[in-house]
Amino acid sequence: MSEARISAPAVPAGAPTRAEGSVKAPAHSQTLSRGIRALEILAEARSPMTIAELSEALGVHRSIAYRILRTLEDHSLVLRDSAGRVQAGPGLAALARGVSRDLQSAALPELTALANGLAMTAFLAVWDQRDCVTLITVEPRHASATLAQRPGTRHSFSAGGPGIAIQSALTEEQWEQLASGQAYRPEARKAREVGYSVSHEEVIPGTSSVAAPIRIPGQLPAAVAVVYVRTDKPEAELGAELIRAAAAIEDELS
Amino acid sequence: MSEARISAPAVPAGAPTRAEGSVKAPAHSQTLSRGIRALEILAEARSPMTIAELSEALGVHRSIAYRILRTLEDHSLVLRDSAGRVQAGPGLAALARGVSRDLQSAALPELTALANGLAMTAFLAVWDQRDCVTLITVEPRHASATLAQRPGTRHSFSAGGPGIAIQSALTEEQWEQLASGQAYRPEARKAREVGYSVSHEEVIPGTSSVAAPIRIPGQLPAAVAVVYVRTDKPEAELGAELIRAAAAIEDELS
Repeated sequence: MSEARISAPAVPAGAPTRAEGSVKAPAHSQTLSRGIRALEILAEARSPMTIAELSEALGVHRSIAYRILRTLEDHSLVLRDSAGRVQAGPGLAALARGVSRDLQSAALPELTALANGLAMTAFLAVWDQRDCVTLITVEPRHASATLAQRPGTRHSFSAGGPGIAIQSALTEEQWEQLASGQAYRPEARKAREVGYSVSHEEVIPGTSSVAAPIRIPGQLPAAVAVVYVRTDKPEAELGAELIRAAAAIEDELS
Repeated sequence: MSEARISAPAVPAGAPTRAEGSVKAPAHSQTLSRGIRALEILAEARSPMTIAELSEALGVHRSIAYRILRTLEDHSLVLRDSAGRVQAGPGLAALARGVSRDLQSAALPELTALANGLAMTAFLAVWDQRDCVTLITVEPRHASATLAQRPGTRHSFSAGGPGIAIQSALTEEQWEQLASGQAYRPEARKAREVGYSVSHEEVIPGTSSVAAPIRIPGQLPAAVAVVYVRTDKPEAELGAELIRAAAAIEDELS
């Protein structure tokens, strides 16, 4: 948890590229982009889609959609059922395992302990380009109703506990260098003092979140968080639990 | 667990396509395939790769690799660090969430309970084309050493507990219709009687696995499994635990 460990966060090359603004990059593959878009559409879909539905969603001719699907199918990224409907396939799970692999492995048992111990949804958020993105989520085992926080959920750093926690892992100077144009929130200054962040009603009306930063040497900070509607536990107690979980994850990775 | 629930498993349209053999499908996009291959390479890599390393692994010119990366980066599927090295990005987690979404949600708490209760790695295996693939894995919280069973690990139905369990969810006639050419194993007949399957030394020397089938109406069967080197627990006790977990997952989805 020493300052030294975060003194040289990696500046992602992707961030300045994005910041260049609306000039469309010429070096971009339309075919590849369409294929990925098809996967994004299928990942969002609540049920398998017909090829006609998918072509329409993609805005391409059915023959193009078919060609994309054949290719995705070759890589196990989509599955077709007996009626010819398409859904996301098991190969995607193998690809996702490579994302911050060590961080995921270290975080999963801690998230599980938080979720079951507090009966709240616990999740790991990481820095992605200009936003904060949920990487993995664990819902509590026995709970009548919990708040889902799906992997891939994206929030601006200006809203929500995990964004504040990630900010709080950096000094204002480091933040300015990494994400100029996004304000360093007063809540992050507070979180930097107490070690955890809180947010109320920022992302979903009626919900709160508490988060603590995870500092990994040479990498951008991440955060562990819980989200809830109401709780009997004092905020400071939740904060202490999250600080403990973040420290355990850091220990595992150091 | 009634027969009726598995009386009409979906025949995946992908399976016969694959079975057509080595005739290369003409309707296939090379650009898309290369982009996915890049993701596969990054998912397997133990550390971030340079663009030069990735171009070489892909067997393409650096300019092509760069164009692929820009496109993948636009979709958050890759991240570049300050040194320009590339790694799998958070967007992949969002895509993977769509794979058998309901099955994953229902299985995760059961896998966690199995892993921690038995101090063994627990996993969910699903049918993918001609093989059985691990979709999610939970390693026990406190264990000196456990066997990893990575998501995306692929096994023939002829080896391993989960493959036998999946076979055992189907009658020999159903199996022949779905996977002609792959033998229905005597072990699957046994598993059909007792409700769980066992395998020793089939996949990894020195390891054993116990698995139980998950039967989901209108879908191909899946399996929940544990893998271990040695245990004091009788096989039948492990089998009973897995049957209980499979039933809980089925209940959640019915």
